Amino acid sequence: MALSPQDREAERHRIARMVLDLVKQRGTEIPYQTAVAESGLTRARFEQLFEDYDDLFDAIAQIWLRRHIEVMEEVLGADLPPPRKMYEFFRRRFVISRERFRDDPEYFTIVCEMGAANFEKVRSYVDLADHYLCELIVQAQADGYFAGLSIDEALSLINQMVSPYTLPESLIYLGEKLTEDKLARIVDTVFIGLSGETGGAARGVNALRVAG
Amino acid sequence: MALSPQDREAERHRIARMVLDLVKQRGTEIPYQTAVAESGLTRARFEQLFEDYDDLFDAIAQIWLRRHIEVMEEVLGADLPPPRKMYEFFRRRFVISRERFRDDPEYFTIVCEMGAANFEKVRSYVDLADHYLCELIVQAQADGYFAGLSIDEALSLINQMVSPYTLPESLIYLGEKLTEDKLARIVDTVFIGLSGETGGAARGVNALRVAG
Repeated sequence: MALSPQDREAERHRIARMVLDLVKQRGTEIPYQTAVAESGLTRARFEQLFEDYDDLFDAIAQIWLRRHIEVMEEVLGADLPPPRKMYEFFRRRFVISRERFRDDPEYFTIVCEMGAANFEKVRSYVDLADHYLCELIVQAQADGYFAGLSIDEALSLINQMVSPYTLPESLIYLGEKLTEDKLARIVDTVFIGLSGETGGAARGVNALRVAG
Repeated sequence: MALSPQDREAERHRIARMVLDLVKQRGTEIPYQTAVAESGLTRARFEQLFEDYDDLFDAIAQIWLRRHIEVMEEVLGADLPPPRKMYEFFRRRFVISRERFRDDPEYFTIVCEMGAANFEKVRSYVDLADHYLCELIVQAQADGYFAGLSIDEALSLINQMVSPYTLPESLIYLGEKLTEDKLARIVDTVFIGLSGETGGAARGVNALRVAG
């Protein structure tokens, strides 16, 4: 029996949720065959829902990243000065990840490993986050920040400087070394210091040395 | 027959070098037992050189990180303005890692995985790099940079902002997105923007909004 698109979506969500719960319970990634066996569905019905593991992983990633996407969109719609807005853009996602990490570090680590192993599947989430960050950069540039930098340059530099707060693995390695206070300092440092003119002193292009 | 301390050191180096070559040839970590078998030494002699895998890994890490430590020490002794000096401190190590990555990405990836799995053994290298970076921070603060920050605060913030250029795994994920030009911009951004006063705008503490 064919499912309606809505029913199919709801059923995909239900099964992906179940698989994610199994990952948590068993402390290990759940292969496609195990998911079929545990789902209580016939193989034919399961394959109707998920073509292959990639497809199942997609549905799992959607559940895991739903809150992250929601808070990015909340921040984007907020009326805040650019530095505050960018801080919130990173902070809210960081807080969600940190809560999950503290709640169950093992489970969090496995999900991170799953994400790393299926990186191409998480790509669309990364692209969406980049797309939103570009909007914030444009807004900031309208206020005079990041002068002389193309949007892509600013995007790449900001992503690199803030990466410990966006890469989930950082929580595993750095833990309590990551704080909201430090993130705020980093965001302000970026707003104060980043422009098309930076790079000269570090590379030794500037002959003049400014006295401190 | 007991070895003299110098002979023992030379022999440890020779065997660790051989094991690292095996890692490269076979594309996989070499367990202790395999290293014993491949070394051509008796088990007793091998155990005299390396108590256990940790001890063997130590000797391997020393070989892998020797150049990194040398360039840090070269930079520390150089007479350069603080931004330039800090840039070189990060750039030279980054260039060594990038060369090795480009030369043999698979080998590089395995060595990264070995480092991650034996993180406590790489700890002393990380501590040494932190120690040297503290010296650079003190020199920069004498010139008026990073005002109002403790050395530890500055250390942690700089390490976080520059992390894509120090974490070897970044090369695997970011590859050509990491460039010396971007590193120079980041270092200058840090020197221009980082002080004890940052963080207020991002956190929304400042009521006044500076027009761009």
